[in-house]
Amino acid sequence: MQPITPLENSQRPYFVGVDVGGTNTKIGLVDNQGQTLAYESIPTNEEAGPGDCLERTADCVDRMVTSLGMARSDLKAAGIGTPGPMNIPEGMIHDPTNLPHWRFFPIRDRLSECLSLPVAFNNDANVAAYGEFWIGSGRDARGLILLTLGTGVGGGIIVDGVVVEGVNSFGAECGHIIVDSRPDARLCVWGGGRGELEAYASASALAERAKELLAAGRPSSLAERVAAGETLSTLMLSEEAEQGDALSLEVILEAATYLGVGIVTLVHTIDPGAVILGGAMDFGGRDAPVGRQFLQRVQEVFASRAFDIVVRNTVIDYASLGGDAGYIGAAGVARARFG
Amino acid sequence: MQPITPLENSQRPYFVGVDVGGTNTKIGLVDNQGQTLAYESIPTNEEAGPGDCLERTADCVDRMVTSLGMARSDLKAAGIGTPGPMNIPEGMIHDPTNLPHWRFFPIRDRLSECLSLPVAFNNDANVAAYGEFWIGSGRDARGLILLTLGTGVGGGIIVDGVVVEGVNSFGAECGHIIVDSRPDARLCVWGGGRGELEAYASASALAERAKELLAAGRPSSLAERVAAGETLSTLMLSEEAEQGDALSLEVILEAATYLGVGIVTLVHTIDPGAVILGGAMDFGGRDAPVGRQFLQRVQEVFASRAFDIVVRNTVIDYASLGGDAGYIGAAGVARARFG
Repeated sequence: MQPITPLENSQRPYFVGVDVGGTNTKIGLVDNQGQTLAYESIPTNEEAGPGDCLERTADCVDRMVTSLGMARSDLKAAGIGTPGPMNIPEGMIHDPTNLPHWRFFPIRDRLSECLSLPVAFNNDANVAAYGEFWIGSGRDARGLILLTLGTGVGGGIIVDGVVVEGVNSFGAECGHIIVDSRPDARLCVWGGGRGELEAYASASALAERAKELLAAGRPSSLAERVAAGETLSTLMLSEEAEQGDALSLEVILEAATYLGVGIVTLVHTIDPGAVILGGAMDFGGRDAPVGRQFLQRVQEVFASRAFDIVVRNTVIDYASLGGDAGYIGAAGVARARFG
Repeated sequence: MQPITPLENSQRPYFVGVDVGGTNTKIGLVDNQGQTLAYESIPTNEEAGPGDCLERTADCVDRMVTSLGMARSDLKAAGIGTPGPMNIPEGMIHDPTNLPHWRFFPIRDRLSECLSLPVAFNNDANVAAYGEFWIGSGRDARGLILLTLGTGVGGGIIVDGVVVEGVNSFGAECGHIIVDSRPDARLCVWGGGRGELEAYASASALAERAKELLAAGRPSSLAERVAAGETLSTLMLSEEAEQGDALSLEVILEAATYLGVGIVTLVHTIDPGAVILGGAMDFGGRDAPVGRQFLQRVQEVFASRAFDIVVRNTVIDYASLGGDAGYIGAAGVARARFG
């Protein structure tokens, strides 16, 4: 969680940032420097449809404004990020997998009516990338690539301060770059094409790979926990790797190797100056031994395969805003467009 | 060669476009719509250094202006593209392989002095991409990726009308994306990292691959020509494939397959709406049977592996400006910045 900045230390104008997830919707009031003035997470209640969620979002913003004693006229604009697919220029959600009751909804204009504010709309990973670019791990960079490592691998790309949306609103689908072109390359366990980064460097992929090696009879302390009924997860891999389990560490570092390969490809395409790793799968991040080993392996693979000058001038690091990157970045894209 | 547009049918202002190659430097006067008013190719005379070439370039521009009876004041700006590495914001050539006597030269500012015009400077592949984007095969697109297939594989990327330069001026090094991450993946015959696109889809790579298969004893009509002392080239592959040689066609279509894989990766990253294939290795282009088969295989691989909506809305085609894309695009980036 970001610290809350008191209104008297803030810089006007203010922006609303909304980050819609399948379970929760995060809402923040953010000042002109990216500082959080108020924050709330409300249930998305996906089944009730987008109209219901947007009305509750507007109520929440009203409560925040009132409780802060802020002038409503100091709110300049709002930004909202949702999962794709979508049509960004038209402000339309299309058919996101985890929001089945939100199909083909004009979310930008409806939120604009609810809030009586101009609204900027973008992909959830793109706004998270913008958040890290604005005040997070990429704040000193001219551009960045954010890779969100979770169940899948998402991405957001900023070039010279501008989000790469793509002409079909399919920019930065970094989980779907191909790192292995062999006909028998791995498939992502929950769909997607063969040999794509997501099939090697997502939480689902790691769990699948560990099961594969266990099934092949490789010894590992994971076996006992799985036998005891636990679900194999990246947290379990992380814990066992830290306790010295070789197989767990192997699976984690293998994923880091493929991630490093994918990053070479992305950086040789964009040359953004910074690659930031976000999402739940961070193995404890920089503060944990396994998290440090994971990051180090990614950096080593990148350094051994990318152009020297690019290696010297590219930061690869964990994200620093955690789950707050989305609403902060949504406020940031609103500021970039309307501020 | 582009047709020459008479001055009376042109639209002011006019721009100078300069495309520096290892052997020749192409110079054009281009109007505000991208039409060529005058064109000349002069020897680069690399060994005499960049100052000499720039002075002769300025003389050439003076001659063109005089012979057209154009007012010099109608020339608004100039653009120049050179091979990298370089520092684009500083206007510096660094150490291009094929211009060994041009190292660390402030080319942008020196050309500006020679011409008494403001000058925009960029990578040669980037300006070629801009040329195709402005008036070539990508003229209806919001963005594009140009892949130049020659001895190596070069690239240029345009997003929403803007060249992706990269923070280290290493943007769009599309030949250096990794399409095969195996430890024993192919190496490009003239350097570069293992498993990179260039090792599969450049003219050098195709020649090498054909030699490999011949050495393995595969029957092919190529064998006689090589035995007769001819150098194995993509032209030879193209000719023999057209005559029905299975191995030649196999090598060409294998390259197309890897190129398709690379294009999936690039499009899932940028989603530009258009991918244009330029450079000398076009197997005769759309007008030749082998050229059509090559392009079709690229399109098929792309269609089978990329997101459906992206497939429907992405043009993959040959470039249409040939060797003129560079000077036209150089004039185009000058117009974009100073026009």
